[in-house]
Amino acid sequence: MTKIRAAMIGGGIGGFIGEIHRAAMRLDDRYELVAGALSSDATRALESSDALGIRGHKSWQALLEKEQDTVDCVVIVTPNDSHAEIATAALTAGFHVVLDKPMTRTLGEAIALAEVALNSPQVFAMTYTYTGYPMVREMRKRIFDGEVGNVRTVSVDYRQGWLAEPIERDGQKQAAWRTDPQKSGAGALGDIGSHAEQLARFTTGLAINEVRGDVHTIVKDRKVDDHACVQLKMEHGVVGDLVCSQVCTGERNHVSVRVWGDKGSLSWSHERCDELKFTASDGTETLSFCIENRAPSGHPAGFVEAFANIYLDCADNMLGKNVAIIDEQEGLKSMLFIDAVLRSEDLQSWCEV
Amino acid sequence: MTKIRAAMIGGGIGGFIGEIHRAAMRLDDRYELVAGALSSDATRALESSDALGIRGHKSWQALLEKEQDTVDCVVIVTPNDSHAEIATAALTAGFHVVLDKPMTRTLGEAIALAEVALNSPQVFAMTYTYTGYPMVREMRKRIFDGEVGNVRTVSVDYRQGWLAEPIERDGQKQAAWRTDPQKSGAGALGDIGSHAEQLARFTTGLAINEVRGDVHTIVKDRKVDDHACVQLKMEHGVVGDLVCSQVCTGERNHVSVRVWGDKGSLSWSHERCDELKFTASDGTETLSFCIENRAPSGHPAGFVEAFANIYLDCADNMLGKNVAIIDEQEGLKSMLFIDAVLRSEDLQSWCEV
Amino acid sequence: MTKIRAAMIGGGIGGFIGEIHRAAMRLDDRYELVAGALSSDATRALESSDALGIRGHKSWQALLEKEQDTVDCVVIVTPNDSHAEIATAALTAGFHVVLDKPMTRTLGEAIALAEVALNSPQVFAMTYTYTGYPMVREMRKRIFDGEVGNVRTVSVDYRQGWLAEPIERDGQKQAAWRTDPQKSGAGALGDIGSHAEQLARFTTGLAINEVRGDVHTIVKDRKVDDHACVQLKMEHGVVGDLVCSQVCTGERNHVSVRVWGDKGSLSWSHERCDELKFTASDGTETLSFCIENRAPSGHPAGFVEAFANIYLDCADNMLGKNVAIIDEQEGLKSMLFIDAVLRSEDLQSWCEV
Amino acid sequence: MTKIRAAMIGGGIGGFIGEIHRAAMRLDDRYELVAGALSSDATRALESSDALGIRGHKSWQALLEKEQDTVDCVVIVTPNDSHAEIATAALTAGFHVVLDKPMTRTLGEAIALAEVALNSPQVFAMTYTYTGYPMVREMRKRIFDGEVGNVRTVSVDYRQGWLAEPIERDGQKQAAWRTDPQKSGAGALGDIGSHAEQLARFTTGLAINEVRGDVHTIVKDRKVDDHACVQLKMEHGVVGDLVCSQVCTGERNHVSVRVWGDKGSLSWSHERCDELKFTASDGTETLSFCIENRAPSGHPAGFVEAFANIYLDCADNMLGKNVAIIDEQEGLKSMLFIDAVLRSEDLQSWCEV
Repeated sequence: MTKIRAAMIGGGIGGFIGEIHRAAMRLDDRYELVAGALSSDATRALESSDALGIRGHKSWQALLEKEQDTVDCVVIVTPNDSHAEIATAALTAGFHVVLDKPMTRTLGEAIALAEVALNSPQVFAMTYTYTGYPMVREMRKRIFDGEVGNVRTVSVDYRQGWLAEPIERDGQKQAAWRTDPQKSGAGALGDIGSHAEQLARFTTGLAINEVRGDVHTIVKDRKVDDHACVQLKMEHGVVGDLVCSQVCTGERNHVSVRVWGDKGSLSWSHERCDELKFTASDGTETLSFCIENRAPSGHPAGFVEAFANIYLDCADNMLGKNVAIIDEQEGLKSMLFIDAVLRSEDLQSWCEV
Repeated sequence: MTKIRAAMIGGGIGGFIGEIHRAAMRLDDRYELVAGALSSDATRALESSDALGIRGHKSWQALLEKEQDTVDCVVIVTPNDSHAEIATAALTAGFHVVLDKPMTRTLGEAIALAEVALNSPQVFAMTYTYTGYPMVREMRKRIFDGEVGNVRTVSVDYRQGWLAEPIERDGQKQAAWRTDPQKSGAGALGDIGSHAEQLARFTTGLAINEVRGDVHTIVKDRKVDDHACVQLKMEHGVVGDLVCSQVCTGERNHVSVRVWGDKGSLSWSHERCDELKFTASDGTETLSFCIENRAPSGHPAGFVEAFANIYLDCADNMLGKNVAIIDEQEGLKSMLFIDAVLRSEDLQSWCEV
Repeated sequence: MTKIRAAMIGGGIGGFIGEIHRAAMRLDDRYELVAGALSSDATRALESSDALGIRGHKSWQALLEKEQDTVDCVVIVTPNDSHAEIATAALTAGFHVVLDKPMTRTLGEAIALAEVALNSPQVFAMTYTYTGYPMVREMRKRIFDGEVGNVRTVSVDYRQGWLAEPIERDGQKQAAWRTDPQKSGAGALGDIGSHAEQLARFTTGLAINEVRGDVHTIVKDRKVDDHACVQLKMEHGVVGDLVCSQVCTGERNHVSVRVWGDKGSLSWSHERCDELKFTASDGTETLSFCIENRAPSGHPAGFVEAFANIYLDCADNMLGKNVAIIDEQEGLKSMLFIDAVLRSEDLQSWCEV
Repeated sequence: MTKIRAAMIGGGIGGFIGEIHRAAMRLDDRYELVAGALSSDATRALESSDALGIRGHKSWQALLEKEQDTVDCVVIVTPNDSHAEIATAALTAGFHVVLDKPMTRTLGEAIALAEVALNSPQVFAMTYTYTGYPMVREMRKRIFDGEVGNVRTVSVDYRQGWLAEPIERDGQKQAAWRTDPQKSGAGALGDIGSHAEQLARFTTGLAINEVRGDVHTIVKDRKVDDHACVQLKMEHGVVGDLVCSQVCTGERNHVSVRVWGDKGSLSWSHERCDELKFTASDGTETLSFCIENRAPSGHPAGFVEAFANIYLDCADNMLGKNVAIIDEQEGLKSMLFIDAVLRSEDLQSWCEV
């Protein structure tokens, strides 16, 4: 099978997310990483590409210019503020684009980028990791198939503790750009709230129409939100509640999504990512397990495999197959959600998404 | 040890909650149930007292009048709309009162009853069951002792499914009065929201200052609320989220309370009521187990034992000991909470409690 | 409903098991405890009966003699070495007998007592607690109904840690008699191995034909076994494994029984006593919950309720109903099992039960 | 960093384990798979190598001859009966060898191969997957560090259900060779019992001195054992119990190892592979989570990552680092264990390992 020739922008050696993307690409052998502009600092960029044994470029502009005939797909894992510019340039230059979430720093950028992506013949895909978990996909499928009946209410709970202290002031690089509104846009809402709202929509297929957020900055003097509780009005009268927080001390990375319908409920939790729980109306709970995720059932798979599933789908699309991916419309919806929650906090009222 | 001579009002044979109260009273042998006016229907009342082998009365008024010298304590387990009148009369007549929650049907009644109770030398106690679980008490103790540091955020999730269908129209007696605003006051908010908010305050010791509720009646044509998500502003800047629902199909009786502070978190869940989980800031989780709740650790205890713990404390108080109980002030706070949430829904804004 | 007039032998105030039996008898109000010979020490016996407000006797002989017309049922909760004598006398004197497990100290005593019980018109019942859990009964019912198909293998794991240290030498009274072969007979095998083997038989309905035990005394200088792994040959070629240990440091009271058939498996664990797990041949797990154990589903019940279920059944039998109880034949089978395991250890070979 | 040039013998496209090995090798980019003799059938071998885009060979002999200067390491994932011959030839020809477990079909072969491996300067490593899980390694480390005190007893439970029916007769290829004694040697004992006994030794560092196995073939007419319960006598008087079964209907791949010492216990279960549970002597349970296994704590990892950890260690060894691996001595111990259990079944007595 043809391998996709890939280049990466951002994701230098030593960071976390670049290496995850590379491992996910390697896992199924459908990509060959051939080039990179792995840092905005030219020296570090070249050091990283040398260490990886790939062609290095001093800047993403140089990469896009010189790898026109030698690269099929550009993977963008830079901080949010450069997403719009790089992705637009890459699409315009004829590359497929895989972009880490959230789509952009601002809503305006997202609207413009979505326009570009829509009009581009190339694949534009976003890596909303949780949609790569087989049992999240199974949850969506079963809800679409009517297993829970008419959906009534949705609850998403995403809590981390890694920003419980102001570590951005101690030079923690990840924390620094994620809590700098000039780089990230929103805080917890953008970083993990975007995953949470995406899970609410992905699993149910229902739009979020209105939101009312109670948004807080719990760590003193932090420049972005780090905790929010959002009430949701979704399509067809479905109501929801969503909490995202990065200051819940001790939480490693708790994500759960629960959906109740008039026939029963389905729930999924990241801690037990290979399981899906159905609760029947009589209270009986049925746990289904991932049947095959590279290894047979009973052999746990996790985060890297979920990521790799997204890369598999992207590869299929790049080779002409029509497989569902998280595209620009999906990415834009997340941006609209974040914007609406922040407006609702400003206005202290419900806001349309 | 002297046994408390008790009489029960409401709680006829065949209902659920009366028998639970009686079992809880019997468990530790500190009460002797000697009389009852067990139904508002005189015939049924006498049938029930006969079946139990206790002195029967046709009405609560008759009971209060005739058992002055033969009963120490009146247990009231009638629908909410008669709580105020009966409890007031019982206190005035010199009985100790144990009253099922919520305190009354309306806030006005609660304020008046609290006044009576405050000025009465007798014990006035409410049976907020969850405060009877040893590990809920342990959670409170540890938070007070500083184990989680300064509290940041509280989350309470109370979901049932028994009212997922409009069973009140099929003659289900419990459902009928609980969904009749003339009998119950509020719906899910009063029935289980009151437990949820009580847990938030009981475990942390923090008042709820303001609320913003998104209150719904999901089952069509139901006359009371059956689902609500409430954002909380608590003392000292603590933020909270609270969901109570009786229409989450399949939920048997899910109650969880989680409290995060700047040093770690504690969480308790009704499904595993003998456990208490502490999560340290490094993510390590420590499960403590109930050491002794009549049987040694490792021998599960549950709902009846929790109820019995409350009755134990009441008995101690009636015999002159000063043991913490849920008193009129606590009961009133719940009523103020329910009132504030319903106002906030009307006004679509934050309301002071 | 007529209350059973009960007397207790052994179980003085301050001990654990007497109070559990009394609480279990009170829970459903089917018994009235009227008399006791609560200790082998006459002074302590009378102190205890005074404290409980019941008629006291200086010895069990006095009780049996004087309470002939005033007591229906004698509950025996003395150390094992007196079971045979007291139970035989009580049956002979015309009392119903409820006897704590194991049946007797020695196999010979058990055979003789079984003969007496068989020929007695009164009820003879043993309190194998785990058979009182609704979900253990449900497990048995479903296996009998064929849910797991033909049973293939059974695994029972019963581990405690309370005897991990030689606390019998520090005056711990429970430990002292339970590790004294003159009082208890066997050690862990008799105390908890008897529960374990009973669960294997109770849930499957299959006899244990042969055993091969690896029996150890792990705490130095202890006079009885405290740890054993037993291989089982059961009826119809079913194979089993059973571990009982009282020296597994930190184990509170872990009991699990798992049964695999050719269509699936059922498993139950004491930690989550209200649940029963069925695993289908495709790996899907279905958790059923206790529907009604005094309180509605979702309200946990535990050890005292399980005990009370056994007392309910005994009361029904004493009043002439034919409800399944653990009788002398069942009690004898446990004694035969213990004897066979100890023989197999001596002979280092398989032994018939 | 220098990549290891690897060739694979066995593991053709379509099988399970070959692809797992390849994915594990790719995950961390320390290997380059350059050649293969991927099937004993020459045509299928070449089809598979073509599909993978690597140099293909018609036989392992051809591979060893022609890739002398172009391959560093040979990965052997053939059925057990060819392990000895291929591994011996590969070592003799100067290749590093990574060999899937169990070491060989017969104990005699294993002894001979161990001799070759011992005298070979190359790396000889076996892929006992469970030793690749970070929390299994953590368990070993903590036991060595004394966290549980002096070890008293070990329990390993490994149950699968995939051979619950005689699928070897329906042409299931994996089942066919694994239940053919000419290809596999032992059945469940060799396939998964070897993992189980390895876990007992790996986590405690204690040798197994004597075994007494109750070995069964539960599926009628199967030619190998498919279920066994083994009593263990380990070093320093430690006792153990081990069950391995492939006929426990519905079990996906249950593996648990529990170790009790005089200060507490540690237990690990494959279902929750990122967790390690410590139980203190007071019953308190502490769950530790994998801190970093490529992704940060809170992002589940699983089977492929565990495999990849083993390949990482092998790569380090091949490049001259001295990192612990499962070597020929360890592999031989497993073979001695299997042999001893089968002898003990024949003799119906304890056998030395």
